[in-house]
Amino acid sequence: MRKLLLVVLSILICLPVAADEGMWLFNRPPRQLLQQRYGFTPTDAWLEHLQKSSIRFNSGGSGSFVSPNGLMITNHHVGLDCLQKLSTPQHDYVKTGYHARTNAEEVKCVDLELNVLMSIEDVTARVNSAVPPSMPAADAERARRGVMAAIEKESLDKTGLRSDVVTLFQGGEYHLYRSKKYTDVRLVFAPEVSIAFFGGDPDNFEYPRYDLDICLFRAYENGKPAHVENFLRFSTTGPSEGDLVFVSGHPGGTERLNTVAELELIRDVRLPLTLARLRRREVLLGSWAERSAENERRAHDELFGIKNSRKALLGELAGLQDPAVMQAKKAAEQDLRQRIAADPQMSAAYGDAWQAVESIVKRNRQTFVERSYLTGGAFNSVLFAYAIMTVRYVDEVQKPNAERLREFRESNLDSLRQQLFSEAPVYKDMETLNLADSLSDWMEAMPGDPMIDQVLAGKSPSQRAADLVKGTTLEAAAQRRRLVEGGKAAIEASQDSMIRLARLVDPRARALRTAYEQQIDEPRRQAYAKIANARFKILGGSNTYPDATFTLRLAFGTVKGYGGAGESFPWATAIAGAYQRAAEHDSHPPFDLPESWLAAKPKVNQSTKLDFVNTADIIGGNSGSPVVSRAGEFVGIIFDMNLPSLVFNFAYKEEDARAVAVHSAGIIEALRNVYGASDVLNELEGK
Amino acid sequence: MRKLLLVVLSILICLPVAADEGMWLFNRPPRQLLQQRYGFTPTDAWLEHLQKSSIRFNSGGSGSFVSPNGLMITNHHVGLDCLQKLSTPQHDYVKTGYHARTNAEEVKCVDLELNVLMSIEDVTARVNSAVPPSMPAADAERARRGVMAAIEKESLDKTGLRSDVVTLFQGGEYHLYRSKKYTDVRLVFAPEVSIAFFGGDPDNFEYPRYDLDICLFRAYENGKPAHVENFLRFSTTGPSEGDLVFVSGHPGGTERLNTVAELELIRDVRLPLTLARLRRREVLLGSWAERSAENERRAHDELFGIKNSRKALLGELAGLQDPAVMQAKKAAEQDLRQRIAADPQMSAAYGDAWQAVESIVKRNRQTFVERSYLTGGAFNSVLFAYAIMTVRYVDEVQKPNAERLREFRESNLDSLRQQLFSEAPVYKDMETLNLADSLSDWMEAMPGDPMIDQVLAGKSPSQRAADLVKGTTLEAAAQRRRLVEGGKAAIEASQDSMIRLARLVDPRARALRTAYEQQIDEPRRQAYAKIANARFKILGGSNTYPDATFTLRLAFGTVKGYGGAGESFPWATAIAGAYQRAAEHDSHPPFDLPESWLAAKPKVNQSTKLDFVNTADIIGGNSGSPVVSRAGEFVGIIFDMNLPSLVFNFAYKEEDARAVAVHSAGIIEALRNVYGASDVLNELEGK
Repeated sequence: MRKLLLVVLSILICLPVAADEGMWLFNRPPRQLLQQRYGFTPTDAWLEHLQKSSIRFNSGGSGSFVSPNGLMITNHHVGLDCLQKLSTPQHDYVKTGYHARTNAEEVKCVDLELNVLMSIEDVTARVNSAVPPSMPAADAERARRGVMAAIEKESLDKTGLRSDVVTLFQGGEYHLYRSKKYTDVRLVFAPEVSIAFFGGDPDNFEYPRYDLDICLFRAYENGKPAHVENFLRFSTTGPSEGDLVFVSGHPGGTERLNTVAELELIRDVRLPLTLARLRRREVLLGSWAERSAENERRAHDELFGIKNSRKALLGELAGLQDPAVMQAKKAAEQDLRQRIAADPQMSAAYGDAWQAVESIVKRNRQTFVERSYLTGGAFNSVLFAYAIMTVRYVDEVQKPNAERLREFRESNLDSLRQQLFSEAPVYKDMETLNLADSLSDWMEAMPGDPMIDQVLAGKSPSQRAADLVKGTTLEAAAQRRRLVEGGKAAIEASQDSMIRLARLVDPRARALRTAYEQQIDEPRRQAYAKIANARFKILGGSNTYPDATFTLRLAFGTVKGYGGAGESFPWATAIAGAYQRAAEHDSHPPFDLPESWLAAKPKVNQSTKLDFVNTADIIGGNSGSPVVSRAGEFVGIIFDMNLPSLVFNFAYKEEDARAVAVHSAGIIEALRNVYGASDVLNELEGK
Repeated sequence: MRKLLLVVLSILICLPVAADEGMWLFNRPPRQLLQQRYGFTPTDAWLEHLQKSSIRFNSGGSGSFVSPNGLMITNHHVGLDCLQKLSTPQHDYVKTGYHARTNAEEVKCVDLELNVLMSIEDVTARVNSAVPPSMPAADAERARRGVMAAIEKESLDKTGLRSDVVTLFQGGEYHLYRSKKYTDVRLVFAPEVSIAFFGGDPDNFEYPRYDLDICLFRAYENGKPAHVENFLRFSTTGPSEGDLVFVSGHPGGTERLNTVAELELIRDVRLPLTLARLRRREVLLGSWAERSAENERRAHDELFGIKNSRKALLGELAGLQDPAVMQAKKAAEQDLRQRIAADPQMSAAYGDAWQAVESIVKRNRQTFVERSYLTGGAFNSVLFAYAIMTVRYVDEVQKPNAERLREFRESNLDSLRQQLFSEAPVYKDMETLNLADSLSDWMEAMPGDPMIDQVLAGKSPSQRAADLVKGTTLEAAAQRRRLVEGGKAAIEASQDSMIRLARLVDPRARALRTAYEQQIDEPRRQAYAKIANARFKILGGSNTYPDATFTLRLAFGTVKGYGGAGESFPWATAIAGAYQRAAEHDSHPPFDLPESWLAAKPKVNQSTKLDFVNTADIIGGNSGSPVVSRAGEFVGIIFDMNLPSLVFNFAYKEEDARAVAVHSAGIIEALRNVYGASDVLNELEGK
């Protein structure tokens, strides 16, 4: 952890970004910085091509088109959600991998939605004009929600594109993102999980690595492979050490602009609570998975997600628990505040923002735990999630667009229905296990809460969970559809246990949410808008980038290793390393290579690069992002970051933090000599 | 969990015990009950023989002598502590098992102490006479500690036996236990962990089971095998369904007499905190163990202990979170209080006890978290434990016996030195891992505590942990000895990082302990003494047994299965079942049988019983307890309890709760036909 000493940090807020930092907006690219550091200036065409070749996986990752026929590539662990939902006890595609040799063999994913960003429009002025500064917070929140929904609806009606008003700079700006949506997505190729995630949890966030973390899908339109104009040409040679590379993807969220008061809340409340819950679920589900191979299959995706988050958040917490990090944050904040204080006009306009955040944080802290349980923590159940979504759907769609809970805005309804009517399998045994434990967790966290007594109805958590799961039929999508179509009358008449539970819990959950939106979220937006504006004034707007928000961003960096005298980490690993590491571990899982790799060993070129690292600024959500050369070619695919970079949520640093990617030459080698996937190869190579 | 509906519970406090309940004192055996239920009356000789054949493993389990030459049997998981400490990367006795074919091959355990109970004396009157009712709590605590230490020292001087004044009925009585001590204990035989703990964590606390959870040691005196007069004859046939059996062992602790207020503290504070810590350590150590085979070896014993406790405590919490359990406890408490209230004399003497406990619980709750961190939770490190023991040793032995912290009383010093100067290996990598995480845990639990800043000294938890572990030499027993011999001057001059940390933390940790002993523990003893006396008056003293305290107890029960129409669990399993279960799991760990069992399959009698269940009342600490027939023969060995019995900490129930034991016939079969251990067999069979 000594590696985390953030000398870089102290200049973070008050000077323009240094080094290869930044998750840049495509409508505000770092042209000057790229020119200065790399003598490269991306043209508008270059940027547009990359933007429209990039794909957002709504299940939580990134990807890119790599052929004109809608072929796209992402990570195996991004595709995992689809693989898991397609698998059965008889056909476990996670374990065995999959290869469709013809279009006819391509299998449709159950409930995947992909978005391709088509345009960005700054709508800050219009959003803010609906919210005059004098407006009380509750009205302001409603007004802001209303104008955002209206802008989105207008845009959807006009363009037919998915339209989202995105909050940037924590409320400093609002941009309208229009995306082309794909919901017919089919599986083309997946390797076995044992090579996609070779080294498993022990090697996760570590480097050197030897993973073929890829998965290929194809977008369909009207039942046929989609023809796309923008796709990345696949480089069969891939990058070399020292190359400038770009990463185009969807970093999920960062908190670099947060004030110190907010960071303390994260360190002392949010991360400990979240980590405790993750560990709890890891132990619960891990023990259950151990009991049988079928349990393991059912739990695989969720367990991976839990372990992955646990490790990432542990790295974040370690950052915030490092006095050096917090001191740097404090110093930078102090510096910015002093600069503002020194200017009477700025002081009048922005000076009170930090104190405002501080009192918002105090309020947030008071209800944090209850909110975290009532909005999901207490009910770790897919069936319950369906139930509350169903109950709310029926309530919300009756209201005018502007007054709905944000996820029920008109422009989002299609996507929401895609989720709500998903045909993904629900495992009732796993549901009971999870729900019983989360109810028990809730009892521990809030002993004596009268809502708990109402929910448990005199039963123990495990008995109640068993009853609830037995008493529902929401695992059938048709049942959810029937309730939604039956409207309020159907909901009120329903004897379904989960629907009844959702109706019991909903009023309190809504009240907490409203209080949060009005008393915490809206005032926070206003306070951070001031901080953002102050920063623009001091730094210049084009030298800054907003915190990540799961919207498309451009990062850049150099392909290079790290370390020094003591330990040195190479810029890339070769295929030989995978065999070697398996041997060192006696092929004990998770260090066991799949049969296909063992059989192919003599044929495979052992010196071909498999994985490599670079200095680009990424975070969770960037999984599957294409790594692109100056020429705009696909040269690799991001799949991980190393341990030192886990602090990226709060600050970038270059010394030893690295993004980890699969090398495009390794992909080619594996497809050719391990999998004999000539059809895929031909398409990638444009033959 | 519906199975836990405790009809039995409602009569627990106010009527004499029913069914096969009870962890009875050897000086107050349930003669009447045994006569009524089973027509059996144990003679004094029968009891004395069993008592003196029973062994307490101070590392936390039970065992028994099974030959006149000091041969004894316990569980593999009780012997694990010794096995682990004897193992090296080259010789992993946990994995491979061990078999000494001659006395010369018997290996000495590193730091094991065994006790055999020789006599019990009721010293309640003497203890209480030193503590007049009017004495303020602080003085009372000191006076009580003083008189206990004095009694123990007198006894030690007079008899040369280990002497412990044991608190029973939470303070209702005090008995003096005198034990013969063995510290030269050698390993004779251990099977492979994969059959001793076949099914691992998934099958732990489950039934049916297929475990050979045994380990054989030999007690030595003056370098020669100890000759013992009392030992259990080994039954080669073992028990049959319906047999009355006895269990003689050391249940570690129960809380059945606790008031409802106390149970709520356990449910809402202690168990959640403990479970969160266990899960945290399980995830941490589990991930670390996965990284290499050597890590796994080093972490094995600790990881087993963590998982075992996690599962047990989860069962306890489930019990307390079951409204039926708590309602029964409340009703029983109400009933007893009403009976007391109805009698003016009893009311005056005992009526205020429950309110007293309630206010003690409130006080306890306030400092619970800080105390739990300062007394160990923050410093999960063997090296730190050595350091603080060393620092305190030097302080305490200068004081008069009566004034010392209880573990430093004269009569306990030998045992304490055995621990303090242990030659067990310390793994510095694992130490750093554990300490870093526990420091981080402490930061999460008590943000802003100034003691944390002092301990971290401006470093992050992981950096500080690394420095602390690097800066100490306490892993060498000689170094600890040197400091102890050097006394106060040596401690004060020491630059050892852990010694300095211990000196920094010690004043606050002592202050918390003193406050606990004076303001919580002593008043609680007084309050519970009243409750106990009231219960004696109402129930009659010989119809009650005290909560378990890791002292020798006698339990009894019937060999029988459980379950009904839906699911039925047989009274015993056969060896064939182990092979079958391994096959069902494709021999995937932890369902993999060792080579020895695979090779021996054709030779082994598949229908020989391997494990069996009975209704005896046991709890953690009973591991390794002999199961004994009416004839006083060894017919099996307790190694587990099933899930429904995890509520035993708070209440016994008979319906589906069962103690799980290895069948003596299974032991014989394995020793003969799997291990060819004719030497051990001959000794067990008295040949």
